[in-house]
Amino acid sequence: MTKPVVIAGAGLCGTLLAVRLAQRGFEVELFESRPDMRRADISAGRSINLALSDRGLRALRMVGLEEAVARELIPMRGRLIHPESGDPVFQSYSGRQGEHIHSVSRGGLNMALLDAADDLPHLNVHFETTCTGVDLESATARFHEHATGESYTVEGCVVIGADGAHSAVRQAMLNQAPRLRFDYRLDWLSHGYKELTFPPAPGGAYALEKNALHIWPRGGFMMIALPNPGGSFTVTLFLPFEGENGFEAMTDGPSVRAYFNRWFPDALGLIPDLEDHYFQHPVSSLGTVRCHPWTAYGKSLLLGDAAHAIVPFYGQGMNCAFEDCVVFDECMDEFGDDWLRLFQRVQALRKPNADAIASLAVENFLEMRDHVANPVFMKKRRLETLLENRFTDYFSKYSLVTFREDVSYALAQTLGNAQDAFLMDLCRGDTAPEDMDLQEVMTRIRMHTAHLRQSL
Amino acid sequence: MTKPVVIAGAGLCGTLLAVRLAQRGFEVELFESRPDMRRADISAGRSINLALSDRGLRALRMVGLEEAVARELIPMRGRLIHPESGDPVFQSYSGRQGEHIHSVSRGGLNMALLDAADDLPHLNVHFETTCTGVDLESATARFHEHATGESYTVEGCVVIGADGAHSAVRQAMLNQAPRLRFDYRLDWLSHGYKELTFPPAPGGAYALEKNALHIWPRGGFMMIALPNPGGSFTVTLFLPFEGENGFEAMTDGPSVRAYFNRWFPDALGLIPDLEDHYFQHPVSSLGTVRCHPWTAYGKSLLLGDAAHAIVPFYGQGMNCAFEDCVVFDECMDEFGDDWLRLFQRVQALRKPNADAIASLAVENFLEMRDHVANPVFMKKRRLETLLENRFTDYFSKYSLVTFREDVSYALAQTLGNAQDAFLMDLCRGDTAPEDMDLQEVMTRIRMHTAHLRQSL
Repeated sequence: MTKPVVIAGAGLCGTLLAVRLAQRGFEVELFESRPDMRRADISAGRSINLALSDRGLRALRMVGLEEAVARELIPMRGRLIHPESGDPVFQSYSGRQGEHIHSVSRGGLNMALLDAADDLPHLNVHFETTCTGVDLESATARFHEHATGESYTVEGCVVIGADGAHSAVRQAMLNQAPRLRFDYRLDWLSHGYKELTFPPAPGGAYALEKNALHIWPRGGFMMIALPNPGGSFTVTLFLPFEGENGFEAMTDGPSVRAYFNRWFPDALGLIPDLEDHYFQHPVSSLGTVRCHPWTAYGKSLLLGDAAHAIVPFYGQGMNCAFEDCVVFDECMDEFGDDWLRLFQRVQALRKPNADAIASLAVENFLEMRDHVANPVFMKKRRLETLLENRFTDYFSKYSLVTFREDVSYALAQTLGNAQDAFLMDLCRGDTAPEDMDLQEVMTRIRMHTAHLRQSL
Repeated sequence: MTKPVVIAGAGLCGTLLAVRLAQRGFEVELFESRPDMRRADISAGRSINLALSDRGLRALRMVGLEEAVARELIPMRGRLIHPESGDPVFQSYSGRQGEHIHSVSRGGLNMALLDAADDLPHLNVHFETTCTGVDLESATARFHEHATGESYTVEGCVVIGADGAHSAVRQAMLNQAPRLRFDYRLDWLSHGYKELTFPPAPGGAYALEKNALHIWPRGGFMMIALPNPGGSFTVTLFLPFEGENGFEAMTDGPSVRAYFNRWFPDALGLIPDLEDHYFQHPVSSLGTVRCHPWTAYGKSLLLGDAAHAIVPFYGQGMNCAFEDCVVFDECMDEFGDDWLRLFQRVQALRKPNADAIASLAVENFLEMRDHVANPVFMKKRRLETLLENRFTDYFSKYSLVTFREDVSYALAQTLGNAQDAFLMDLCRGDTAPEDMDLQEVMTRIRMHTAHLRQSL
């Protein structure tokens, strides 16, 4: 009897990979500690949405789910900035037609993947079964089944850890850190987050522009909102834990109301029962996980958040995890089930890109928090939109990361940062972007970044 | 009844701190998973020696042990370089009289501290009792007593983790990482190490110069040897794990002998039964641990390797841990048993210095491995010795770290690196150090580093 591929974690990454491996004919056993979200009422997660962009869409295409999912997506064509005073300002994500991101329900997408999994005969999903340990050398995972209270082991041909930021498979590697020379790094932001909801306006209408990602940048902290189907928005407050504008300043109902009245007055009318709502939701931390190696003994591999949990500020966590699966699949064309070489190639291809998006995400946090409302930055965004409108070979850093799934995160970071430094310098001058000689600007950009653009 | 100070780990750091706290009148319960090395025959550790320098001596002075320990120290006045060909070259550690380091037995020093602990009525040491977990908020530690197989908890006023690189107290913080925003970083070198021994020459003589730290730098790898009382040397091979000159190349007796014959021929005659000896000793990994915070809830604190395990290439691991205890003690003069503020101050004072010595130790690995036999580097060392001979206000980076216990590691790093860059540039020219105008060199160094020297 052939041993199955054991996958820990039936979240977005694990289920996608399981589906793809089963489509390729592998026996797959997929384990998930949470209940089946299609049967249980897991209210948490239902209303949470994510930004899906081209790298993620490519992965859905790989397993044949792009069309089914497309019907549930809400396009977000740009950022709608809500300044402290004055009218909101729209910043397009791209100067090109059709380049936008999508708000998608995390739960809905996961359920679509689980439905696809159910249709595959070689794929078994075990819910409410927690991975409690892994023997890496024999690819044997231990599980605890909640319903029966029983524990058992499953020996796979390999064990793949797609079990998220708190991965048990990664913990098994960490337990052997000196032997594996397992580098590990955990970094937390000084900011935490809290999720709130803007309910639909009367009649199921959207109280704010539907097709945008809303941002209230406040210099040092911010709030964002993404649209859900049905008229609601999922809202996330990103505040420092400490200090006068931090979460610790909101100790009771009146201080919450005063805070919103001071910083987000236009949102006040959008959250009924703000005080109750606020205190019903927890404050969570924002961390980055980096590690290396992702593979041990040719028998185990980490993918997705288990290998590279990142902060959410580029909207790329899911997209990066999905891209891991696409690269895994492409490498399989070359290596088949030569797992040792397959895993090493996947690691070699993905690790530099995971590091790049991890850094980009932290940098984008600073950008969204501090600079989105900054005049030089706003000029630069306008200039980039003009350049993207006019030149087919200009892509902002944001576009490279978000719309160019053929460009690696690492190259997007290097080229994007070079462009940004150049354009920010230009925009510190007095000339408005609309009065600039765009042809000359583009010629200079091409020269300035020629060494990086060769592989575009 | 007052609750005791609970200290996990009766190694060098934990025992020193326990002694000092007991001297100050605190009730101290000290726990150690290993047996009492004064009673059990723990061969591992007996022959291992460490480099003790001024920061460490200051700590021994604090607890009144400097004189007793001094009798067991072997001065090492410089590095004795064994090149691939030609005669050994002596590089003094300092151009000043009396500035040298000491080889000391780790076990001997630890036993001296334990003996001092026995003399203190308020201090109980529990051997063969492993800390298996800590409730940080209540300062309650769980222990497993080997002899009885029993587990019990001890509630302290605080719990101090001096339990080394694999600290259980640090693990308790890591288990609450999102809540504590516990940054954690584990980095491994590509090199490992293996300890060997040169036994005494006939009649108990030293087969090599006694008062030196011996180095065989080979560009990419190296061997070192430190003297023990009685004529033997503890030898450490630092090799890459992989590659033709790595540990993996030595698979059997003949390949070990061939390796030594090729790279360390003068050592061949010093190790009888080289092949057996070689395979009796394991290859270990070399890692750096960085974390933050070191303290949680005002109830727990990490010190020594538990807070900052470093690689051994500056000979400062023990010295840094001892300095932690000295700073702890100084802060007690201000904060007494206001543990919350005490622990925060200790962390604030020590974290930047622990980071500095961690980086310096990795950098010194590269220096010892690659540059010690390099002509420009050797010129620079000669020039530094001349400068230290002539100017009372010149201290090399090595001297700042090693002999200036009044200068922080962080300042030693910054000032030392600035001096090094300046002197290396100077030594790339044709002039020999002996022909340089030392007064002019020193004037330029003083100007170049004036902003850093203010606090010297």
